[in-house]
Amino acid sequence: MKRNRLKLGIFGFGCVGTGLYKVLEETGSVEANIKKICIKHANKPRPIDAKYFTTHKDDLLNDPEINVIVELIDDAEAAFEIVSEAMRKGKDVVSANKKMIAEHLPELLELEKKYQVSFLYEASVCASIPIIRNLEEYYDNDLLTSVSGIFNGSTNYILTQMIDDNIPYPEALKEAQNKGFAETDPTLDVEGIDPKYKLCIILFHAFGLSTKPENIFNFGISRINDFDLNFATQRNYAIKLIASCKKNGNEISGLVAPSFIENKDPLAYVKYEYNGVVLESAFSENQLMIGKGAGDKPTGSAVLSDISALTYGYRYENKKYLHVDPSLKLESTGKYRVYVRYYDDFDSFDDFLSIEEKFISPQGNYFIGIITLDKIINSKWIKDNKINVIFCNQNIE
Amino acid sequence: MKRNRLKLGIFGFGCVGTGLYKVLEETGSVEANIKKICIKHANKPRPIDAKYFTTHKDDLLNDPEINVIVELIDDAEAAFEIVSEAMRKGKDVVSANKKMIAEHLPELLELEKKYQVSFLYEASVCASIPIIRNLEEYYDNDLLTSVSGIFNGSTNYILTQMIDDNIPYPEALKEAQNKGFAETDPTLDVEGIDPKYKLCIILFHAFGLSTKPENIFNFGISRINDFDLNFATQRNYAIKLIASCKKNGNEISGLVAPSFIENKDPLAYVKYEYNGVVLESAFSENQLMIGKGAGDKPTGSAVLSDISALTYGYRYENKKYLHVDPSLKLESTGKYRVYVRYYDDFDSFDDFLSIEEKFISPQGNYFIGIITLDKIINSKWIKDNKINVIFCNQNIE
Repeated sequence: MKRNRLKLGIFGFGCVGTGLYKVLEETGSVEANIKKICIKHANKPRPIDAKYFTTHKDDLLNDPEINVIVELIDDAEAAFEIVSEAMRKGKDVVSANKKMIAEHLPELLELEKKYQVSFLYEASVCASIPIIRNLEEYYDNDLLTSVSGIFNGSTNYILTQMIDDNIPYPEALKEAQNKGFAETDPTLDVEGIDPKYKLCIILFHAFGLSTKPENIFNFGISRINDFDLNFATQRNYAIKLIASCKKNGNEISGLVAPSFIENKDPLAYVKYEYNGVVLESAFSENQLMIGKGAGDKPTGSAVLSDISALTYGYRYENKKYLHVDPSLKLESTGKYRVYVRYYDDFDSFDDFLSIEEKFISPQGNYFIGIITLDKIINSKWIKDNKINVIFCNQNIE
Repeated sequence: MKRNRLKLGIFGFGCVGTGLYKVLEETGSVEANIKKICIKHANKPRPIDAKYFTTHKDDLLNDPEINVIVELIDDAEAAFEIVSEAMRKGKDVVSANKKMIAEHLPELLELEKKYQVSFLYEASVCASIPIIRNLEEYYDNDLLTSVSGIFNGSTNYILTQMIDDNIPYPEALKEAQNKGFAETDPTLDVEGIDPKYKLCIILFHAFGLSTKPENIFNFGISRINDFDLNFATQRNYAIKLIASCKKNGNEISGLVAPSFIENKDPLAYVKYEYNGVVLESAFSENQLMIGKGAGDKPTGSAVLSDISALTYGYRYENKKYLHVDPSLKLESTGKYRVYVRYYDDFDSFDDFLSIEEKFISPQGNYFIGIITLDKIINSKWIKDNKINVIFCNQNIE
């Protein structure tokens, strides 16, 4: 086996970059060295030798000696430009940018194929959990039936604080931001947009389905109030922001929504910034993978694994996408059991196939009913800030 | 990508075989069919058509149409004969026989290489947890530092019953046997021999170290009594039978022993027949993989994944073994913190580097001390049935 000696050009130099530098330059445990690092602000103090830095992206992209570009910047559109150009120049690419990947996967695959390069992005989904690699390598057949879990460390940190530590939402959010778990724009986390990007990437590697983020329903955690928390505590539930997708014949369901989780469910133990992924396949019990899903070290370790894999010329084979059943499609007709909390009159009971529980009190009202996803998506009440929805479990059929 | 159409010959037809038949013949979701099944007892009633069965192994081994042998029998030596012969006939092999693999790995690799076949055995370690595949594919570099966890579902079932459900050891063991989690010879489970076989396979795929089971220290759970359980309960510990290995430079430590686990440790949540594997690597937080480690369906699902991988011609690359540092060696000089419970006088305190706690009472005595593994291995008191040893945490250096 021939290992390739890698020369890296890195875009972005936050803590992930600093950690990478340490492992690559100081321990020498991977056959890769950093040649150049492209940064935005030339005058920021840096922990390593100034010779590494440039503010000109072409210093990396046009350097024939650099054979791998590691893209670690925040801006998805700028990242897309860099990554595309790198592939056009014949360089392999490692990226952690889930937004860019979820939005541009078909174009990126096209470039990867055309320029015969490798494009790896394990760090983009659940940081240190090797979920993409497992979907590619171990669950590489059509036996997989569903993938679900906690894909966002920031909201899980917030929800754990709210439920286990009785800390109100605004404070919990602030704490998550202080710890560096939250995205620059917290809306991406708390409204379930970040896990939706990840779900798109999962859908591709789990089932070969290529779909845009706008096709996936997401509902966040920002409306959760004391009434909802009380309900959860009384029934011994945790609340988790769950992303899930499921295959049923040629139909795929996928959504991101806060969900009540029974305390004995292993996902209930996945707390704070941890992520957890549950894989279900035919003839198999559930598998659970747990690891830190936010923070610099977990992200850095996934980036490092991708770099290490490039020394062996590893590529995602995308088998499932290449052999996808053309009739495979995303659907939103699945039935779900949902908890709806409201204060005023609720006039859309007709949207529901059945109502299982109803509770009215001066503190607030809720009901639990069965509804299809498309009814929720197309409803007016889902847009009403005074109404909250929490899924009671996943697809009930 | 060309998929190979597989024709399987199966040795052994218990519940795993029956489950495989169902998935392969009834759902058709893997490009593989069963041609023949070799069984021991011709007259046992079978749930499927008699045309599949034979009692002559050569009916499978000499059939040129059968290109994959699936070995699911109990007897390790008979399994070795079958698997070796299958490879010599140019057939790929899937096996779940950890004892055979742990004891014969070098010879099996030799045959695999010589006859250019593929030999897969994911089901042999932690059943449904894809640990070998992850060590081969994702942790395929030298960044991995340790692998540890609960590798035996039967003892974990027993220990969970003893601690969570207050069921005495003999009853708990019986229950595990009734549920089909225990090996035919329960000594293999309760004395930590079964997890030792698995640890040998892990050592090979994690660090490239080939070693025989007899080189690994194992200590079981059969001596755990109420006094020990009380100690654990008082300190809020779980007791788990932990197999672990760790790399430090060119030295590898490896052992199987009952260990106190703090209640907040994720492994404490791995209960009953579940297995859990913790992977630690440089620059990364711990990863935890959880899944059922005993029973027919979990084993069957791993066997099925291997069969599915063969349709793509998958092989373990054994990179770490092929490029192993020749100075890499197993050592037993690491220091450990251990709890020792004794009734009579204990006269070997000199074996310990230090004693941290000492407790004497009419109900029993214990002390906690620091000791190197070789001192334990070579001691007389470790063989004394009236003395029990539980590790307080893993290697302390």
